[in-house]
Amino acid sequence: MKKGPFEILSSTPIYKNPWINVREDAVIRPDGSQGIFGVVEMLPGVSVVAINKKMEVLLAYEYKYAIEEESIELISGALDPGESIEQAAARELKEETGMVASEWIGLETVTPFTTVIRSPNHLMLAKGIHLDPDHVPDQNEPVTTISVPFKEAIEMVMDGRITHGASCVGILKAARLLGL
Amino acid sequence: MKKGPFEILSSTPIYKNPWINVREDAVIRPDGSQGIFGVVEMLPGVSVVAINKKMEVLLAYEYKYAIEEESIELISGALDPGESIEQAAARELKEETGMVASEWIGLETVTPFTTVIRSPNHLMLAKGIHLDPDHVPDQNEPVTTISVPFKEAIEMVMDGRITHGASCVGILKAARLLGL
Repeated sequence: MKKGPFEILSSTPIYKNPWINVREDAVIRPDGSQGIFGVVEMLPGVSVVAINKKMEVLLAYEYKYAIEEESIELISGALDPGESIEQAAARELKEETGMVASEWIGLETVTPFTTVIRSPNHLMLAKGIHLDPDHVPDQNEPVTTISVPFKEAIEMVMDGRITHGASCVGILKAARLLGL
Repeated sequence: MKKGPFEILSSTPIYKNPWINVREDAVIRPDGSQGIFGVVEMLPGVSVVAINKKMEVLLAYEYKYAIEEESIELISGALDPGESIEQAAARELKEETGMVASEWIGLETVTPFTTVIRSPNHLMLAKGIHLDPDHVPDQNEPVTTISVPFKEAIEMVMDGRITHGASCVGILKAARLLGL
C-alpha cells in the first residue's frame, strides 16, 4: 500500500490505551531504502484562549506527568466522540472554569508533531467570558486556574514561562488578531 | 516512588526504536484513584527561524508520515548526543540548506505535549544567513527548501497553511522580536 511517497510493507499494533495508540509500520522510503516508523496516534484536542472583559486570559497551572513538572497552559482537553471543535471548546471552558463566552473565533489548528505523532490540536479564541450562573463547581478538579493580563501572558510565552505548544501558538495568534 | 503528586506503582517498557520510547506506568493519582499513563519519550529537537538579509525565512516542504500529508516547517532536527542546542541548530541549518548564520538568538523552548509525551523542542533565530562556500549539497536530501518573505510566513501561520507546532511558535516569537 502507498502512503504518499512511502510504500507500507506491514503495520503492527504495539500498544493502545484510552488516550494513545502506538503501531510500527515497516516501509520503503522515498529513496528506496527499507525502514520502520513507530507512529503514535492521540485523540484530537482543543485549546481555548479565554479572555474576559478586562482583557485577562485564563491559565491553568497543573503538574504534567510526562514532562515531570508544573506547566502553565490554556484551558485544554480532548474532543469527545462526535463532538465539534466549538462544542468541545465550550464544554472544556465550562467544565474547568464555570465560564461561558459571548463570542468564539477560530484560530486554526496546530499539529504539534508531524513525523511520528498524529494529534491535531484545534485553537479557539473565546471573548467576553463570564461566569455561568447555573454552574456547579467540581470539587475534585485538580487544576488551578488564574486570570492573567493578556500582555503578561504574551510575556510568559516570550520568556519561556509558558512552553506548552498549543498554548504558545494560541496566545501569540490571539495577540496578533487583537493587535497586542 | 513519588513523581510530583503521583505515586508510581510500576513502570513497564513497551516499545523502543531509535526515535521514540514508550512505557506504561501504573500510578495512584493525586485524588487517590489508581490509573495508568502510557508515556512517549522522544529525542529533544531544535527548530531554526533562518532569515536572510532580504528578510526572507527558509521553509522546508516535506511529506510527513504520521499526519499523512505535506507539511511546511522550519529547518528542524533532533539533537545528536552531547550536542548543544546552538551546535545542533547550526548543523541542521548547514546540512539542510548549506547556509551559515551571522547571528544566533535563543527563542526559548517549546514542549509540544506535556501530559503523555516528553519531547522538548528548542527554538533558535538565525539572522543574516548566507551560503557557506565550502558546502557540498547532499543529492539524497528529500526536503525542498524555499525562501519566503517573513511577513508571508507569518500569514501562513495565521491562516493555517503552517500548522507544525514548533514552526508556528518560532515564527510568531521571531515576529514579535523583530517588530513585524
